[in-house]
Amino acid sequence: MTGVTAGPVLVVGAGLLGTSIGLALGRHDATVWLSDVSPEHVRTASGLGAGIPVPGAGSPALVVVAVPPDLLGPEIARALVAHPEAVVTDVGSVKSAPLEELREKGVPGLARYVGSHPMAGSERSGPLAGSASLFDGRPWAVVPHEDAEEAAVAAVTALAELCGATPVRLTPDEHDLAVARTSHLPHLLAVLAAGRLADAPAEHLALSGQGVRDVTRIAAGDPGLWQQIVAGNAAAVLGLLSEVRGDLDALIEAVTRDERSDLVALLDRGVRGTRAIPGKHGGPTRPTETVYVSVPDHPGELARLFADAGEIGVNIEDVHIDHDPGRPVGLVELAVEESRAELLAGSLESRGWVTHR
Amino acid sequence: MTGVTAGPVLVVGAGLLGTSIGLALGRHDATVWLSDVSPEHVRTASGLGAGIPVPGAGSPALVVVAVPPDLLGPEIARALVAHPEAVVTDVGSVKSAPLEELREKGVPGLARYVGSHPMAGSERSGPLAGSASLFDGRPWAVVPHEDAEEAAVAAVTALAELCGATPVRLTPDEHDLAVARTSHLPHLLAVLAAGRLADAPAEHLALSGQGVRDVTRIAAGDPGLWQQIVAGNAAAVLGLLSEVRGDLDALIEAVTRDERSDLVALLDRGVRGTRAIPGKHGGPTRPTETVYVSVPDHPGELARLFADAGEIGVNIEDVHIDHDPGRPVGLVELAVEESRAELLAGSLESRGWVTHR
Repeated sequence: MTGVTAGPVLVVGAGLLGTSIGLALGRHDATVWLSDVSPEHVRTASGLGAGIPVPGAGSPALVVVAVPPDLLGPEIARALVAHPEAVVTDVGSVKSAPLEELREKGVPGLARYVGSHPMAGSERSGPLAGSASLFDGRPWAVVPHEDAEEAAVAAVTALAELCGATPVRLTPDEHDLAVARTSHLPHLLAVLAAGRLADAPAEHLALSGQGVRDVTRIAAGDPGLWQQIVAGNAAAVLGLLSEVRGDLDALIEAVTRDERSDLVALLDRGVRGTRAIPGKHGGPTRPTETVYVSVPDHPGELARLFADAGEIGVNIEDVHIDHDPGRPVGLVELAVEESRAELLAGSLESRGWVTHR
Repeated sequence: MTGVTAGPVLVVGAGLLGTSIGLALGRHDATVWLSDVSPEHVRTASGLGAGIPVPGAGSPALVVVAVPPDLLGPEIARALVAHPEAVVTDVGSVKSAPLEELREKGVPGLARYVGSHPMAGSERSGPLAGSASLFDGRPWAVVPHEDAEEAAVAAVTALAELCGATPVRLTPDEHDLAVARTSHLPHLLAVLAAGRLADAPAEHLALSGQGVRDVTRIAAGDPGLWQQIVAGNAAAVLGLLSEVRGDLDALIEAVTRDERSDLVALLDRGVRGTRAIPGKHGGPTRPTETVYVSVPDHPGELARLFADAGEIGVNIEDVHIDHDPGRPVGLVELAVEESRAELLAGSLESRGWVTHR
């Protein structure tokens, strides 16, 4: 640890994110202090090695506020007042609303506050879900407001890097628009798709394939947390929801009147959207091709498959296991670079696997 | 092959599905005849071993119409007229509209027609994408209308089974409602989510995580095909789109007025929807837990991971590889039965893997 992060780091909130930050900083022998409204959380997180309870004396150099969205404003304000020398950051999912709250209240020392947002999480919560590797390789938005000190920006950037993440610098408004588009809107549309399944007859749901499972997976997220995230980013979310309502009306109109070219235009826009998502490692999207392999559904078979793929020397970009009703054969989808698909499929076939592309 | 499928099977349309059916029946030494408007497709499919071009003499016992949705009605009618002894089926994504077309035209022999729909496909199309194992373990809807002969139902059920699929019997209306809910609506909502990414600034898209990738994946499907599917199932799709518009309006209202309990109710319904999807092998959904493992992104590492998981003896229910921007470390998500997660994570850690839950 160098610079401002050489001093103690106070983590406020010993849940999933706070505990994980403590554990990640522990890999660099940083001094981490933990506080939480729940003494039990602090005990658990300390027991895991995420830090120690706040001692009687001394001041933190950096405060990391890791509390639910509704509490961000008050907890950031409290940290700025209580620790007048410290840089203060938070790891909340929304950035503009808490900042506005701080400005309205005239909280002193705002130049020492730089918001941030690691793009990592888990369906589980609480300190026991924490992990030193939670942030490894993930984007971590560093979000200075216009009056933030550069030294504070540097400290928060260093925090992201020490935790193993890749810092991405954005303004608060840009951040909130970006996550509205890439996280909050997809979540809400997944919720709407899943909502139409809630009371569907079982015999209809028997036709569920991989597509509906992928589209609706994130809709299983905790409603208690998500209502705070959505409400905390209301302006950006409402802007996009209104655009989606326009698209939905156009879609209903196109299907009602059987206007095929309008329908195709909407579908085409969706195809373009999927291509706009950056590829692995932030580089341009590389074209991949999927090789399907039938695999008996018991332990060891996947090992055999991946051992064979490894020996063939083809790097697997992505894997899905298909949930097939009615019989004990899994279908494994291996996504590989387009130019390698033929080699992989052919070599797997020659080793006795049943494949198709 | 027994019963009505003992005679030659004529496959009309040698694309992905038609070729795959020929290849799958070939595993049972069935006689398969292939026809297509493109002689090139017939040559390619025959070359792959999917069947032979239609000979000068003889009649098929079963005709399988495997053409794009807009052509289903005319091609089924043609088959019923040309082959007055044969059972006729199709493998299209929609069932009521072509049936209505056949009834309106008063096509003779309708009792010999039983529609069907294998829940299998690929992003690729054409005979070269065909595979004998495409239908292995997939649901295959068998969809008799009210005047269909039981012998015809039995023949189409046998076809699904011979192709390796699991028959699911539904009425035409039920089928169209079921696929509207489990396939067409999720597709359209994925398209709407992806559509909001199409012209987004690159720095916003840099925050894309696994969630938005999963939600939007199927929106990459061919617009030319999907406009036919959606238009062919217009009534059922419009019913659901109208329900979604109601939900969307309620969502916009709840966010605008910050009515948290309404927002939570909508999010809760989504959670219930994800739980309604049947689990693997058609059984009840088993609770799974995800173990995350950091894996260097080069050939052989996945093999090593799955070899270790195989030796530990824990069956892997699902796998995702996370696309992480900025660094060459992959995050592999292993979904396993809840009761096995601790064993897997602990045993992997003891073998030197970095995991978290």
